[in-house]
Amino acid sequence: MKAFDKLKAIQEKNKSTLCVGLDSDISKIPAQFSKDINGLLEFNKTIIKATEKHACAYKINFAFYEQYGADGFNAIEETLKLIPRNIYTIADAKRGDIGNTSAAYSRAILEAMNFDSITVNPYMGSDCVMPFLENKDKMVFLLALTSNKGSEDFQLLDLGGMKLYQKIIETTSKWSDETNIAYVVGATHPEYVAGIREQIPNNFLLFPGVGTQGGDTKGLLSANALCPYLINVSRDVIYPAGDGDFAEKVENKAKHYQALFNEIDSSISK
Amino acid sequence: MKAFDKLKAIQEKNKSTLCVGLDSDISKIPAQFSKDINGLLEFNKTIIKATEKHACAYKINFAFYEQYGADGFNAIEETLKLIPRNIYTIADAKRGDIGNTSAAYSRAILEAMNFDSITVNPYMGSDCVMPFLENKDKMVFLLALTSNKGSEDFQLLDLGGMKLYQKIIETTSKWSDETNIAYVVGATHPEYVAGIREQIPNNFLLFPGVGTQGGDTKGLLSANALCPYLINVSRDVIYPAGDGDFAEKVENKAKHYQALFNEIDSSISK
Repeated sequence: MKAFDKLKAIQEKNKSTLCVGLDSDISKIPAQFSKDINGLLEFNKTIIKATEKHACAYKINFAFYEQYGADGFNAIEETLKLIPRNIYTIADAKRGDIGNTSAAYSRAILEAMNFDSITVNPYMGSDCVMPFLENKDKMVFLLALTSNKGSEDFQLLDLGGMKLYQKIIETTSKWSDETNIAYVVGATHPEYVAGIREQIPNNFLLFPGVGTQGGDTKGLLSANALCPYLINVSRDVIYPAGDGDFAEKVENKAKHYQALFNEIDSSISK
Repeated sequence: MKAFDKLKAIQEKNKSTLCVGLDSDISKIPAQFSKDINGLLEFNKTIIKATEKHACAYKINFAFYEQYGADGFNAIEETLKLIPRNIYTIADAKRGDIGNTSAAYSRAILEAMNFDSITVNPYMGSDCVMPFLENKDKMVFLLALTSNKGSEDFQLLDLGGMKLYQKIIETTSKWSDETNIAYVVGATHPEYVAGIREQIPNNFLLFPGVGTQGGDTKGLLSANALCPYLINVSRDVIYPAGDGDFAEKVENKAKHYQALFNEIDSSISK
């Protein structure tokens, strides 16, 4: 099954557009888990069990694992085994390099590790992105307009009637179809989403930045107008505040976001 | 010792501006090495022994190792142990992410693995680059104008009197001084180097793209006008063609480039 169809199917089955970001950090996991890689894996197992009925996808942030070297790399592979096969996976690795190097990353992440998709930085241009797009069964999420403050430094530069991120979308969206190419657009920039949807109504958008980063969900999804999307929430789901059972708190957070996104979407369709 | 001083010292000691790129690939290594990670490490050991008197730096291309998962990550760490301590190291990882993620990459690569420097993609802006720059003893090579064909897609876009890569240099060069910040400029773009040197005469430039990628070395170094630089050569040094002893061929290639760069530079200084 193509990754695109897998994502559509699990969104339908779980009635969810929530992607849970496994930004798992040994220094932040609750005291009930050991402060080592094994504890991190137990933590991930708990998060996945608590959220697998309420999420459509898991996003694994490579940096948080690579900081532990080879052990961390193993932990990515072990975490993948904990994720039910019908749930979509995103390697949030933000790779991109000259052709032969991108090809090596593509083999590593989309074939050997068998992720459904990967985030890719488009700054180096076509021959950096193409080796990922060649795997037609998988999906590439290109960074268009990211959720961080620094996105204003270059992504919003004016090219004379068009901003850099718009130009990147215009150029790259011709490189493959919507079953193969998708975009990262920060939930912190809802004011640009309607314009992006005029450019690319059919491509999946991955919106990070809801929760701790404070994006405006209602404005975002109204502008998105029921086009295909996922919203990633990391910290607010996996490090819930307050007392009580950890797994229960995580599940409640995931349920909360699942319901919130569905409610906003149904208010639009009316 | 600051990485910047280490690089200056080894360039002086070895009389070399050659950086050898360890783009080591099991499918390309000679038959005398076993076709596995151990063979790859023996290959790297042979390359390093054959070139350590003729190079100032080694650049490790992460993609080529990560394609083997945790074993590949181990191989990066093992390769670092084979490099003499006074030779400069570059983690060619092209990382860059939102602040807390970049901080995790910075800890992984500049602290835990203890590389002298890392390549970083600036597209996501200041808060993505800053966590790397905070380690003042290390260096960050920002991608400005890359060596690949696709660099024309976005890096050369016109912002009204300035191209995108020039704007990126202008903005980022204010974020730290030349002992902390350096740039990647493809050797395939010698026509832009004089302009870059007007912008940043004192920062190190890393020029990839000589050798297999076919950059014009004489035009490049003439435009560079003896400002601080390294030239990376990967494939043409580590996979030398022809018959004869492998280590000897590699050493001869390294000597050839070392001498070539020095000859061109001395013709400029006259």
